[in-house]
Amino acid sequence: METRDMLWSGWGDPAKATPLPESVAGLLREMLGVRPAEAAPVPLEDIDVPGTRLPDAVLAALAAAAGGAEHVRADPVSRIRHTRGKSTPDLMRIRAGETSDAPDAVVLPGSHDEVLAVLDVCAGHGVAVVPFGGGTSVVGGLAPQGVDAFIALDLRRMDALVSVDPVSRTAVFQPGLRAPRAEELLREHGFTLGHFPQSYEWATIGGFAAARSSGQASAGYGRFDDMVTGLTVATPRGTLDLGRAPRSAAGPDLRQLVLGSEGAFGVITSVTVRVRPVPEAVAYEGWRFPSFEAGTAALRRLAQDGPLPVVLRLSDETETAIGLADPAAIGALSSGTAGCLAVLGYEGTPEEIAIRRDAAHVVLPELDGEPLGAEPGDKWRHGRFNAPYLRDSLLDAGAFAETLETATFWSGIPELYAAVRTALIRVLSGGGTPPLVMCHISHVYPAGASLYFTVVAAQDRADALGHWEKAKRAANDAIIDAGGTISHHHGVGTDHRDWYAREIGPLGMDILRAVKDSVDPQGILNPGVLVAPVPEK
Amino acid sequence: METRDMLWSGWGDPAKATPLPESVAGLLREMLGVRPAEAAPVPLEDIDVPGTRLPDAVLAALAAAAGGAEHVRADPVSRIRHTRGKSTPDLMRIRAGETSDAPDAVVLPGSHDEVLAVLDVCAGHGVAVVPFGGGTSVVGGLAPQGVDAFIALDLRRMDALVSVDPVSRTAVFQPGLRAPRAEELLREHGFTLGHFPQSYEWATIGGFAAARSSGQASAGYGRFDDMVTGLTVATPRGTLDLGRAPRSAAGPDLRQLVLGSEGAFGVITSVTVRVRPVPEAVAYEGWRFPSFEAGTAALRRLAQDGPLPVVLRLSDETETAIGLADPAAIGALSSGTAGCLAVLGYEGTPEEIAIRRDAAHVVLPELDGEPLGAEPGDKWRHGRFNAPYLRDSLLDAGAFAETLETATFWSGIPELYAAVRTALIRVLSGGGTPPLVMCHISHVYPAGASLYFTVVAAQDRADALGHWEKAKRAANDAIIDAGGTISHHHGVGTDHRDWYAREIGPLGMDILRAVKDSVDPQGILNPGVLVAPVPEK
Repeated sequence: METRDMLWSGWGDPAKATPLPESVAGLLREMLGVRPAEAAPVPLEDIDVPGTRLPDAVLAALAAAAGGAEHVRADPVSRIRHTRGKSTPDLMRIRAGETSDAPDAVVLPGSHDEVLAVLDVCAGHGVAVVPFGGGTSVVGGLAPQGVDAFIALDLRRMDALVSVDPVSRTAVFQPGLRAPRAEELLREHGFTLGHFPQSYEWATIGGFAAARSSGQASAGYGRFDDMVTGLTVATPRGTLDLGRAPRSAAGPDLRQLVLGSEGAFGVITSVTVRVRPVPEAVAYEGWRFPSFEAGTAALRRLAQDGPLPVVLRLSDETETAIGLADPAAIGALSSGTAGCLAVLGYEGTPEEIAIRRDAAHVVLPELDGEPLGAEPGDKWRHGRFNAPYLRDSLLDAGAFAETLETATFWSGIPELYAAVRTALIRVLSGGGTPPLVMCHISHVYPAGASLYFTVVAAQDRADALGHWEKAKRAANDAIIDAGGTISHHHGVGTDHRDWYAREIGPLGMDILRAVKDSVDPQGILNPGVLVAPVPEK
Repeated sequence: METRDMLWSGWGDPAKATPLPESVAGLLREMLGVRPAEAAPVPLEDIDVPGTRLPDAVLAALAAAAGGAEHVRADPVSRIRHTRGKSTPDLMRIRAGETSDAPDAVVLPGSHDEVLAVLDVCAGHGVAVVPFGGGTSVVGGLAPQGVDAFIALDLRRMDALVSVDPVSRTAVFQPGLRAPRAEELLREHGFTLGHFPQSYEWATIGGFAAARSSGQASAGYGRFDDMVTGLTVATPRGTLDLGRAPRSAAGPDLRQLVLGSEGAFGVITSVTVRVRPVPEAVAYEGWRFPSFEAGTAALRRLAQDGPLPVVLRLSDETETAIGLADPAAIGALSSGTAGCLAVLGYEGTPEEIAIRRDAAHVVLPELDGEPLGAEPGDKWRHGRFNAPYLRDSLLDAGAFAETLETATFWSGIPELYAAVRTALIRVLSGGGTPPLVMCHISHVYPAGASLYFTVVAAQDRADALGHWEKAKRAANDAIIDAGGTISHHHGVGTDHRDWYAREIGPLGMDILRAVKDSVDPQGILNPGVLVAPVPEK
């Protein structure tokens, strides 16, 4: 399946680049005052990378640990391809040839024991270690702070489906397996993960676990952290093996301490997950609601009382008008979908789908929903992984595009929505032209939901990154002040760390620091991610 | 509602004592060789309690912290009533007047701030603190180890339903509220927790959270740890406030570190839980399966593919024959239910119940299930909280009765079942007469299930406790060796600690110790529970 490398200067497979429709280009000019970009990305071969800080002896020790010299790469292209992640600031920096965060080498261990050996070498030489799966972090999770030399620990060699237990419906994966290949392998056994985040094409099983990924079908299949029943973790102090039962009362659930640890507590080398039979059929459909408020009430009704589709999402008025749910039609502004578009997806046997859809068609009209048929649902489904490609084209065209997300309880959704939107519009409008701020709900629970914001604006030519940073800080402040979590599924990384500290408080931070010190006494694991590199006094 | 105190020498409300049916007495004599007890419990007023080790100055400081001298009790009866929990060894010790584990005082704070103040006094004077909710621990969770003086921190004054959020369907409780009163208060708002563990009549909301309780309707309502969305915890190092959204990707889920912490990491002073509308109707029914294996396959089918009842349990052949599912008929051996009895409970609207029950009546006959109608289900339902009362009568009659439980993945259930059963029978038969070992599955997940064992045997007159301890150790070894978790819902306490250490490994233990040190640097919180009191080198 996937054999190409991720585009170093943008998203995904270069062959899948999405050209900007003329309708969008016009919209950018007229609504946002976007002017064409002044410069294309620096060519890869022209990018200058500082020399590796790793002495030959350390490189040799790493090669011995990882099973051979061919598994340690210090060439510029390998290092550039492992520099930072895929946030818009990450892309803007790498497109400008800025490689200050490049790893000193890329190391590719092939087994749990080789990971332990690499950690041992790194701990012995004070070399930091950044676990690298799909490289799709959008929160600065691959840019360690306060380090001298560091390696990217690329897990792509550990890409096996180790075993399937059809009785328990669980599967054991190595961490470096990419999601599409994991699906392909599982389907040979009749199973699916049902996990389809927007990063699906590139993200890995280990990354899903380390970052608490949430897929587009989370309403039906659960979040990735819901699916995990077992974990093996390599740390500088040895191995952690967790998960003897789906659930237990034997103390705290330490799996939940590894999930979301983003490489700061260890390297996940094995993941056991719940799997499900491949559904016989799928069906998607669109619904229109007169307002985001009405649509939110309808989603809450389905989340609390059912029928619960496997996919359930609702765009706000702006996102609906722009047509972001159908990337091919963005900017057309003529889809006829005034109000707010919801997409519902059902999976199962045709009978199960019919029962749930019929129930939704009873409930939703009572909540001011108007059925739009299959077309809007199918369009969303076919374009569901395209948005990151579109972002590349927007950057090429001179626009700025980024996303951020949060979650809270249903009763707090209206305040959180207004607070974040207002903060983004206020700060970004200070740059001259007002931004487009769009939002959708894409993950629901009985008690609450997530909010996912997409921002498109003209680039501030004087200081595009600084301008965005101000807006992002204001949004983060608004999230915390309004009672939301700093991330529903993107994670903490280095970008969200200061707000995460406000979210869990100083004692929560002390606990994390104590856990980190216990498994990583030298502080080599992804320094600066989750926990500040130097304890604040 | 509940105004009586728990029976100091047994379970529950003395007025609800369950006399032993003659059929059971006969069964005990004939099958197990049980002879009448030699001695009744020592009268409460005759029990000698060592003098409190707390100086008057400390008692005065505790009184100031807890809001008044009336909230600090050092009288013998108060201390006896807070001595240990409700395991059979606990009962046998206290019935014999053995009070070596009595707290030096019982302290009753009235608020989060008072809890903080009490912890401050205790940390300053090296006094250990055992949080005390319903006092229903069966794993030695109330008997600290390696301590000098300690207090029982009884949370009964903190018994409010603080707030209900009908939009998010969450409720905020203080920790000391007992479950029946919590249900009563919630029902005024139209909601229920749906949480009915066997300890229901006495257990508290805080205890449910601290011990990861699992209720009899867990298939429908989830475990208590599933329901918790927020927690406030008082520690010697200050307050931890967790839970800004139902789910989050902001780092590890620290709520899952507090859940199951059994008082070793702090005192839970507030719990936010998901609640659900009170169901319109309930319906229970019995099914017969030809074997435990066939019944297990049927439960797995319902857990994985539905229809999923809210209550789903299966007794093995021995438990079915004895009739433990219907305490009033125990020993009758004539219920006509050969094979294995399953109980299914449905809740919801009458239509929802009908749909699920109809679906079960299609699926289960294909899996060799035979419907027995409503009677066995209703009998189970009406006797569901009676077993602990029955144990008191068994002890009075000279028998030994105790329970233990575990969980694992479906594929491991047969081996785990056989290993634990064999270990118990082997060791206990060494005492002369073979024991009755019964088992049921009472909690199911898509990936696995719990096993709950009940043991009834003749008391070994020479050393009843030592005899049981050997059997319990053998069962614990069997659980760990067969890949099970040392507890699915009873917890770790001090009794399971050594096997818990094997379950999570030395690095897992180091992590717990690091967490404990960070919130409890003096080690005053429930010493010896979860974590050994002195770090092993």
